[in-house]
Amino acid sequence: MPALITYKTAILADWVDYNGHLRDAFYLLIFSYATDAFMDRIGLSGDNRDASGHSLFTLEAHINYLHEVKLGQEVEVRTQIVAHDRKRVQLYHSLYKASGDEEVAASDQMLLHVDLAAGPKSAPFSEQSLQALHRLTEAQHDQPPPAYTGRTIGLPPSR
Amino acid sequence: MPALITYKTAILADWVDYNGHLRDAFYLLIFSYATDAFMDRIGLSGDNRDASGHSLFTLEAHINYLHEVKLGQEVEVRTQIVAHDRKRVQLYHSLYKASGDEEVAASDQMLLHVDLAAGPKSAPFSEQSLQALHRLTEAQHDQPPPAYTGRTIGLPPSR
Repeated sequence: MPALITYKTAILADWVDYNGHLRDAFYLLIFSYATDAFMDRIGLSGDNRDASGHSLFTLEAHINYLHEVKLGQEVEVRTQIVAHDRKRVQLYHSLYKASGDEEVAASDQMLLHVDLAAGPKSAPFSEQSLQALHRLTEAQHDQPPPAYTGRTIGLPPSR
Repeated sequence: MPALITYKTAILADWVDYNGHLRDAFYLLIFSYATDAFMDRIGLSGDNRDASGHSLFTLEAHINYLHEVKLGQEVEVRTQIVAHDRKRVQLYHSLYKASGDEEVAASDQMLLHVDLAAGPKSAPFSEQSLQALHRLTEAQHDQPPPAYTGRTIGLPPSR
């Protein structure tokens, strides 16, 4: 199976610094839009007007910046499911230049399934969402394993 | 010493979802502006027209979302230096509601000092920047230790 492409965009003028490079926070905005698109694939929606009344909230995210990206560059997000349980899903979003082979940024994210009407409050995935998670996980079996998952920030010991 | 407040803002309309809550990526944008302000304090600038010709690039960031923040809320970023070496500095940015005592988000970040004219290429901090890092580190000795530093994303083992 090809990689699951969840989002495509060009780098917009609002997202770059004076030098035409994508600012760190806007890499995460692109990944945020990718999560919205992923939600659609498992029967949820980023919009609580959606009939499901459920959504995913980001609990925690880690991001690695690998290469600069410039204004106007076409990029795409490829998404893998690292793991999930009854209420949570860990996603790995990778940013690539469109049709390119080089990862320019990566984000490991833990997302919580919530019932919007009840709080919002954490809630088990529906049977439909669980089936979609299983199906998407199966479909990515031949993808290369995520390179930047489970990382910890820290300086190496002093020399 | 009081905490080092690097950035203050109200939550802007461009940063919230249909429900008036700050979107995940825009927490990181607020922290990105805090890093810009931190650079000014160590004799750098986010703007390479700055005389120093040096800047900080984000290598890696981790963010924990602790509470929702709504449109119009006044917030502030409190920043601590976790560690640094000759070329890198690890910052811990915390987001608080203005004058509040509750951390609403936290970000651990590894930043690299770069010479913009040379590439950009990694470069040792100037003596002036090192002195500023030492001074700021000393000044935060009585601050509570960061609660969300050195974290790893992952699901707990299945029960």
